[in-house]
Amino acid sequence: MIRHLLSAADLDAATATLVLDTAHEMALLADREVKKLPTLRGRTVVNLFYEDSTRTRISFEAAAKRLSADVINFSAKGSSVSKGESLKDTALTLQAMGADGVVVRHPASGAPHRLAHWVDGSVLNAGDGTHEHPTQALLDAYTMRSRLGRLEGLNVAIVGDVLHSRVARSNVLLLHTLGAKVTLVAPPTLLPVGVEAWPARTSYQLDSVLPDSDVVMMLRVQRERMDEAYFPSAREYSRRYGLDTARMRRLPEHAIVMHPGPMNRGMEITPEVADSVRSTIVEQVANGVSVRMAVLYLLLGGKV
Amino acid sequence: MIRHLLSAADLDAATATLVLDTAHEMALLADREVKKLPTLRGRTVVNLFYEDSTRTRISFEAAAKRLSADVINFSAKGSSVSKGESLKDTALTLQAMGADGVVVRHPASGAPHRLAHWVDGSVLNAGDGTHEHPTQALLDAYTMRSRLGRLEGLNVAIVGDVLHSRVARSNVLLLHTLGAKVTLVAPPTLLPVGVEAWPARTSYQLDSVLPDSDVVMMLRVQRERMDEAYFPSAREYSRRYGLDTARMRRLPEHAIVMHPGPMNRGMEITPEVADSVRSTIVEQVANGVSVRMAVLYLLLGGKV
Amino acid sequence: MIRHLLSAADLDAATATLVLDTAHEMALLADREVKKLPTLRGRTVVNLFYEDSTRTRISFEAAAKRLSADVINFSAKGSSVSKGESLKDTALTLQAMGADGVVVRHPASGAPHRLAHWVDGSVLNAGDGTHEHPTQALLDAYTMRSRLGRLEGLNVAIVGDVLHSRVARSNVLLLHTLGAKVTLVAPPTLLPVGVEAWPARTSYQLDSVLPDSDVVMMLRVQRERMDEAYFPSAREYSRRYGLDTARMRRLPEHAIVMHPGPMNRGMEITPEVADSVRSTIVEQVANGVSVRMAVLYLLLGGKV
Repeated sequence: MIRHLLSAADLDAATATLVLDTAHEMALLADREVKKLPTLRGRTVVNLFYEDSTRTRISFEAAAKRLSADVINFSAKGSSVSKGESLKDTALTLQAMGADGVVVRHPASGAPHRLAHWVDGSVLNAGDGTHEHPTQALLDAYTMRSRLGRLEGLNVAIVGDVLHSRVARSNVLLLHTLGAKVTLVAPPTLLPVGVEAWPARTSYQLDSVLPDSDVVMMLRVQRERMDEAYFPSAREYSRRYGLDTARMRRLPEHAIVMHPGPMNRGMEITPEVADSVRSTIVEQVANGVSVRMAVLYLLLGGKV
Repeated sequence: MIRHLLSAADLDAATATLVLDTAHEMALLADREVKKLPTLRGRTVVNLFYEDSTRTRISFEAAAKRLSADVINFSAKGSSVSKGESLKDTALTLQAMGADGVVVRHPASGAPHRLAHWVDGSVLNAGDGTHEHPTQALLDAYTMRSRLGRLEGLNVAIVGDVLHSRVARSNVLLLHTLGAKVTLVAPPTLLPVGVEAWPARTSYQLDSVLPDSDVVMMLRVQRERMDEAYFPSAREYSRRYGLDTARMRRLPEHAIVMHPGPMNRGMEITPEVADSVRSTIVEQVANGVSVRMAVLYLLLGGKV
Repeated sequence: MIRHLLSAADLDAATATLVLDTAHEMALLADREVKKLPTLRGRTVVNLFYEDSTRTRISFEAAAKRLSADVINFSAKGSSVSKGESLKDTALTLQAMGADGVVVRHPASGAPHRLAHWVDGSVLNAGDGTHEHPTQALLDAYTMRSRLGRLEGLNVAIVGDVLHSRVARSNVLLLHTLGAKVTLVAPPTLLPVGVEAWPARTSYQLDSVLPDSDVVMMLRVQRERMDEAYFPSAREYSRRYGLDTARMRRLPEHAIVMHPGPMNRGMEITPEVADSVRSTIVEQVANGVSVRMAVLYLLLGGKV
């Protein structure tokens, strides 16, 4: 039983599998044109976003509304936060207003954990700094299982800017829990300190990893977070770590290509690969809504 | 049968008339205090706004909510668009999230047409560049028909900054389809290249056009889009093309004065005219909600 | 019978008591997990905010949604207001769109009063300039009555930046109506001109006022509105007018400590006091939703 979803590490295999199975039920209902469930009627979900992230916000918003919850968007930019209000006082405010769930995106790693101390409702981490993004890991796992039929024993290559990626960290944790084997592929400058303690192998060579991969997940290069001095040129990066058609052919025939979006088309992935039949990028978005419905349903409905 | 509303030219006379008739039914229901219809329950409408336009956004939002749709506002400012995401990837995201309707405002002419290639839901053009704004044309036509009893044979003068006006272009197309006769009145510098191909007459002289006009529609002067060198002084513009009380007296007694808003009071229209009994400016706003309800109902409800 | 809530002075004792009693009913329903009432189904509430105030906006939004109203947020920043639209034209737009209630926050004192001339729906003042904030006064009165059992005869000290505080003004008016006795405690530079006409006593000495106070309400120091030359140093201010644990001990045992939020912890109030059992700060937020539900219910439901 968990009350919050702060880290992919909060989920043991049984709980994670329950989320994925529930998401599958949600997707089946949507396929049958059952687009609105009364489950969370009268519940209030607050989207508390200290960073802009329209895609994640509207995915949670769509998920909550399909469950009939009331959604309140709280963009912390230009709010009383700019008058110096602390995260604690904001939390107490949301608590007092009766928020049943708080979806939080914050630039500081660990902010959702602190928030969880101050509210009775469920806190859902929608991305904290370079730390974690657990619902992204769940939707990725859901997509792999849906395409390849299983997670146990899969070889998953996560490629690129691991250093700045909360997606990578949450994926490594969850995939390890669910029995997949992860290889992180990146230049040394884009691997975080301490990566050797993660339950994953590392490699600097994409080409050698591809032939054994069932899944290759390309990460967004987050140049806005980088010290330019340490970053290779875009051309050099694409040449060594970008996924183009030639490189995609090195993958086994059944292998899939993933990306959390938004893509830098032409940088870490070419348009041809992004739009190919192997690509699950659009499915990932659709699965994101199903997975977030499942998480909201289980946490706020008191089912897990 | 149409799936999208991209241009006023998409509407033949029968379809346009069906929209206006349906809008009339919506208005009658509102008059009888039937403020909420269950028609689009479970459907999701996304307002995808790449330009600020609060008036248009809340008109669509109010319309969709009265039909019981879920509404998600997606302001593209400060979103992943600013991280370089393409319109196509945004479209695929909305598609994957299950948007049944996408209401799009974009600074680039033609953006809604491109969007329509990538989504299964209905795309509603809420203004693209200087190109089109078809629901504005529909609400204007509705207002004329409501006030004057017919559209066929009406003389409509559209006055002012035609060059930058998507309202003018959509009105010309729709009014022509519905049998009204349009005269565009503007200084030569504010008429677009190629205007001679539009189904409308042009004139540089407002005073000579007024006595034969059933409708005079004043356009907003969009100085923010103008090269100052080509623009006459505000005083000169008002003197020649502004509508004041003296000039309004040249109109036939039954004639009405329209403006799409927001007005530059004192520039293209004086406050006395804007607030006169001939003015339909407030009615146009109210009719906007009815017309947008009709369009959403017909497109998303699969009725057209 | 009132149609708008523009000033705390609009409320006579009977009406104010009806609001507080209704808020109490709303709170009881929430305690019994009745989180959604159908009362305002089909009604539209517009939050028209010309200043950022996320806390007040989401409190009204949560209240309206619990009553099943449709809520449309209209942030005037970046809207047609920035194209020079007047408050009157915005009002006519909202009116035409069928807004049943308009919740307005505006930097100019008196703006809600002007708005009320132009719309048929109910106008609720959510803060105008340094003038009034009547729902804050109602939630404060509710909190006092709830904690202390009555309002008649209570001694209430309102402490600090009275000059810039709409909260202070609305509280003085409402508390006077309801029979409480208010003392404003502030340095002379932070009292407004004409304060001697308010139905309240004034004092420059916090320490001498505390022993007789049933309630001490600390105001936020609004340094962003101040001429630095007239403002004492933060340290000096805290020393003379800040509430710390030592000073709190001078209060009678039953006395409570209030703050409208957001707090400057360490300036007008120490963290220990803010988090003490005497503090009602979190309750005030929760009561804010109940009180706003009551006001919306009574005004839009035509009950008062």
